[in-house]
Amino acid sequence: MASGAGDHSQAAMNVLREKVLTLDTVNPCVRRVEYAVRGPIVLRALELEAELRQGVKKPFTEVIRANVGDAQAMGQKPITFLRQVLALCIHPDLLNSPDFPEDAKRRAERILQACGGHSLGAYSISSGIQLIREDVAQYIERRDGGIPADPNNIFLSTGATDAIMTVLELLVTGEGRTRTGVLIPIPQYPLYSAALAELNAVQVDYYLDEERAWAVDVAELRRALRQARDHCRPRALCVINPGNPTGHVQTRECIEDMIRFAFEERLFLLADEVYQDNVYAEGSQFHSFKKVLMEMGPPYAAQQELASFHSISKGYMGECGFRGGYVEVVNMDAMVKQQLLKLRSVRLCPTMPGQVLLDMVVSPPAPSDPSFTQFQAERRAVLAELAAKAKLTEQVFNQAPGIRCNPVQGAMYSFPRVQLPPRAVRRAQELGLAPDMFFCQRLLEETGICVVPGSGFGQREGTYHFRMTILPPMEKLRPLLEKLKQFHARFTHEFS
Amino acid sequence: MASGAGDHSQAAMNVLREKVLTLDTVNPCVRRVEYAVRGPIVLRALELEAELRQGVKKPFTEVIRANVGDAQAMGQKPITFLRQVLALCIHPDLLNSPDFPEDAKRRAERILQACGGHSLGAYSISSGIQLIREDVAQYIERRDGGIPADPNNIFLSTGATDAIMTVLELLVTGEGRTRTGVLIPIPQYPLYSAALAELNAVQVDYYLDEERAWAVDVAELRRALRQARDHCRPRALCVINPGNPTGHVQTRECIEDMIRFAFEERLFLLADEVYQDNVYAEGSQFHSFKKVLMEMGPPYAAQQELASFHSISKGYMGECGFRGGYVEVVNMDAMVKQQLLKLRSVRLCPTMPGQVLLDMVVSPPAPSDPSFTQFQAERRAVLAELAAKAKLTEQVFNQAPGIRCNPVQGAMYSFPRVQLPPRAVRRAQELGLAPDMFFCQRLLEETGICVVPGSGFGQREGTYHFRMTILPPMEKLRPLLEKLKQFHARFTHEFS
Ligand SMILES: Cc1ncc(COP(=O)(O)O)c(C=O)c1O
Ligand SMILES: Cc1ncc(COP(=O)(O)O)c(C=O)c1O
Repeated sequence: MASGAGDHSQAAMNVLREKVLTLDTVNPCVRRVEYAVRGPIVLRALELEAELRQGVKKPFTEVIRANVGDAQAMGQKPITFLRQVLALCIHPDLLNSPDFPEDAKRRAERILQACGGHSLGAYSISSGIQLIREDVAQYIERRDGGIPADPNNIFLSTGATDAIMTVLELLVTGEGRTRTGVLIPIPQYPLYSAALAELNAVQVDYYLDEERAWAVDVAELRRALRQARDHCRPRALCVINPGNPTGHVQTRECIEDMIRFAFEERLFLLADEVYQDNVYAEGSQFHSFKKVLMEMGPPYAAQQELASFHSISKGYMGECGFRGGYVEVVNMDAMVKQQLLKLRSVRLCPTMPGQVLLDMVVSPPAPSDPSFTQFQAERRAVLAELAAKAKLTEQVFNQAPGIRCNPVQGAMYSFPRVQLPPRAVRRAQELGLAPDMFFCQRLLEETGICVVPGSGFGQREGTYHFRMTILPPMEKLRPLLEKLKQFHARFTHEFS
Repeated sequence: MASGAGDHSQAAMNVLREKVLTLDTVNPCVRRVEYAVRGPIVLRALELEAELRQGVKKPFTEVIRANVGDAQAMGQKPITFLRQVLALCIHPDLLNSPDFPEDAKRRAERILQACGGHSLGAYSISSGIQLIREDVAQYIERRDGGIPADPNNIFLSTGATDAIMTVLELLVTGEGRTRTGVLIPIPQYPLYSAALAELNAVQVDYYLDEERAWAVDVAELRRALRQARDHCRPRALCVINPGNPTGHVQTRECIEDMIRFAFEERLFLLADEVYQDNVYAEGSQFHSFKKVLMEMGPPYAAQQELASFHSISKGYMGECGFRGGYVEVVNMDAMVKQQLLKLRSVRLCPTMPGQVLLDMVVSPPAPSDPSFTQFQAERRAVLAELAAKAKLTEQVFNQAPGIRCNPVQGAMYSFPRVQLPPRAVRRAQELGLAPDMFFCQRLLEETGICVVPGSGFGQREGTYHFRMTILPPMEKLRPLLEKLKQFHARFTHEFS
C-alpha cells in the first residue's frame, strides 16, 4: 500500500490538536436537544444511591425513583403468561417441559412457525412479523367496536419511541420560514421536544388547560397555530391521551373537536395512545382517535391522516426493557407508506422479543384457555392497584396547603402545581436554576424522593409543578406522599 | 370546549383534498434514501414464495435467500448457552429447574441483580447496564492484548445499526459547501449510504481495490478526499473490516496507513467491526482499529478519534432478531460524549434481551464452567462450516468462465464479478434496469436464487457484481453454486 505518510510525518507530530468533534462542531440540532426525564436530577439520584451503598449518612435510607414510568423497576411483577411464552420462544427445548401451560406452548409454536428459520434469532421483515401485525389489526378492531384495521397499515417498532421518531422524521422538511412546525401539548412528554430539536423542526406549543384537568382547548390550539404560521409551516398535531405528564383522559367530544381542527387546518395527527389501558377515574373512558375519526364519517373518516402509537412499556404489563410497540397509520398516502417502510428497512427490523410480547398483549389468553384465570387475575390486580394509587395521590396532595393536584384520570403520573415562595424563586434564580428544579433538588437531597421538575415538561410562565409517578408500591407511596407534603411545608416556611 | 367548528363546516365538506403528507411533501432526505438489501429483488422473492405455496409451477421448488446476512434464517442453530441464560432471565422460575446448568443460572442471577427491580422488564440506564459495559470493556482488553478499555466509553445499542446511526448523527453539520462529508468504501454495506442520505450528509466514495482482494488503497483515499473538499467538509472516514460485501480482511499495515491518513487529514474514524469473529482465510487475522491505534503510540494513540462497532448479529452466534450491539468511543471529547449520552437518553435504552446476549458473547463460559465444552463445540462447528463454505464459494465461482471471485477471507459474503454480454447490458438499459439488477432478476425467476446486485453496494462504472451470502447450509450451497454457474453460462449464451 502506497502510504505517502512520509510527506506528512512533520504534520503528524504536531501534538494536541483540536479534536475533529467538539461541542462547537457537533451537530447543532443534537446540541439543542433537551431531555429532562433522564436529566441532572436523575444523575444526582444515582450518585446518592452510590453514597448510601458506601455507608454515607443521609437524612433517608433509600432513594425512591418516582421520576420515570418504569413499573417493574418499582417492583411490579411481570405477567406470568407473557414471560412463559417468550421463554418458550427463546429456548424451544422448554416446549417439552411439563411446567408450562399448553396454551403458552401453542402460542410459542405459532410464533416460531412465523419466524425465519423458526427462530427469534432471525431478522423479521422490517414492518414486523406478518402474523403479529394481523393480531394487532384484530386487537384494534375489537378495541374499536369492529371498525376494520389493515395489517398493512401497522408497523411494529422498538418501543413507541422508535415509531414516533420515524413518523416525525417523515414530516420534516423546509428551511427558514417553511420549516415544518409540529404542535405539541404543554406540558408534554419530552420525547416530543427532543425529537423535534433533533430533526430541526419547529416546536409549536399549545397549552393544556390546568383549570379543566389539563384538557385540550381548541381556542388555544387556534392561537398557537395562528402565531406559528408567521414563522413556520405547521403540518402536524401531536396529542398524548391518556396524558403524560398530566394524567388527563380526553372526552370523546374533545377528540372530535381536535379531529375537526386538524382536518380544517390540514394537520397530520399523531395520537400517542401508549396509556390506553391506564384509565382509572370513574366516568373516564379511553376513546381511540381512530375510532372517533371513523365514526365521524365523511369527510373526516376517509381523509384525515392519523398515526396512532402503542407500546408494551405501559398498561398492566410494563415491559419497558423489551422495547415493543407499533404505529397504525390511517389515510396515509400509499407512496408515503412506501417511504416509511424504506426508512424502517434501513434499521432492519424491530426487536423480536418485543414483537413476541406485543403479540401476547394484543391477543391475551381467551376465557377457554388454561392460562386465562391467572392472566386475568394478575392483570386486574395491577390495574386495581394503580387506580387506588392514582386516587390516593390526588387526595393526599390536595390536603396540602400550596399544592394543587388534578385528578389522575389515567396514565401513570400526577403533575401537581406547587406554590413556591418568592424568596425561593429568587434564590433559585441566583443559583441559575429553574425554581421547580431548585425545589426538586432540595426534595431529593433531604428526603431521597426523586421527581422531575415541571420545567422539563413545559408549563405556563410563573407556574411551578413536578411530575411524580404513581408507581411506587402502596406501602411506600403513602409515606412518600406524606413526606413530600411535609417537605413542601418546611420549604415554604424556610423561604417565607 | 369551544370548538368553533361551525365557521368552518363549509371548508370541511370540500371533498378529496390533497393529503398533508405526499411524495412531494415528505422529508426530502428520506426520499433520497436507497436501501438495496431489502429492495425489489427481495420483495419479488417473497412473492415467489407465496406463489410456490399456492402451488404455482416454477422452474424451482424453493426460493433460496442468499441476500441477507441472517444465519439463523438459513438454518443455523442458536448457541445453547446464550439461549439458556436469556430464558432464565426472562422467566426466573426456571432458576429452580434441574434442566439448566449451574453456570447459566449464576450468569442469569448476576444480570438480574443488576436490573431495575431485578427484571428485564425495567428500562436500563441509557448507555446500557453498567455491569455489562464492564464485561464488554474486559472483552476488549482481552481481545486487544491488554490495552485498557473504559466502560464509560462503551455504549450498548439496539444492534450495531443503531449505534452507527447515532455516531454519524453527531458528525453531521453545515450547509451547502460546508456540509459534513463522510468517506465510505465502495462497495459498501448500504446502511452507510442510506444513513448519510437520511442525515443530509455528503457521501464521499473511495473505491476498494478489486485487484488486491478489495483492499483499501491510501492513494485512492487521497483522491476521494481531495475531490470531496471542493464541495463539502469531509470529517469522517468509515471502514468495514472484515468487509461487507467484499469478504476482505485488512492487514495490519493497511490499518496503520488508514489511521495515519485519518490523523493527517483530521477525520473521525468509524470502524465497523461486526465481523470480528468471522475470519477464515489462512494468513488473515482480525486486527482491531483500537489495538493498532494504541500500539502506534504518539501522536495517534492519544488523539485520533475512533468509534468501533460490534454486534450480536454476526460472528458464530448470529442472533440478529435480538438486536444487540455496542460502540466503543476512543479519544472522544468529553463534552461530545455527553451529547452522545443525551441522544441515547431520548431513546430511553437499548433492548434488554440484546444486552443480555451481548454479555454472553463478550464473556462466554470459562474452561472451568460446566457449559464450556458444549459452548466451544457449538461455536467451533459454526465457524468451521463457515470457513469451508467461504472456500467452496471462491473455488466454484472461479471455475466458471466469466465469473471472478476474490477469496472470502472473512465476513459472510462473496462479491463475485460477472461478465455480462453487451447485448444483455443494452437489454437491461432498455428495461431501465442496472445490468446486474437485470441479471439477478433473471437468476431469481429461473432458479429461485435470491442475491443482491452489485449496483446496490456500489462498484466501478462498467463492472458488474452480485453479493451472495455463504450462509446456506453446505448441502444447499453446493448445488446453488453449480446452478448459479450454469445460469451465468446460459445467460451469456442467450445474449451473445
Ligand atoms: C407518552 C409516552 N409516549 C411514548 C413513550 C415511549 O415508550 P416506549 O418505551 O414504548 O418507547 C412513553 C414512555 O414513557 C410515554 O410516556
Ligand atoms: C457491516 C455491517 N454493519 C452493521 C450491520 C448491522 O447489524 P445489526 O444487526 O447489529 O444492526 C450489518 C448487518 O448486516 C453489517 O453487515
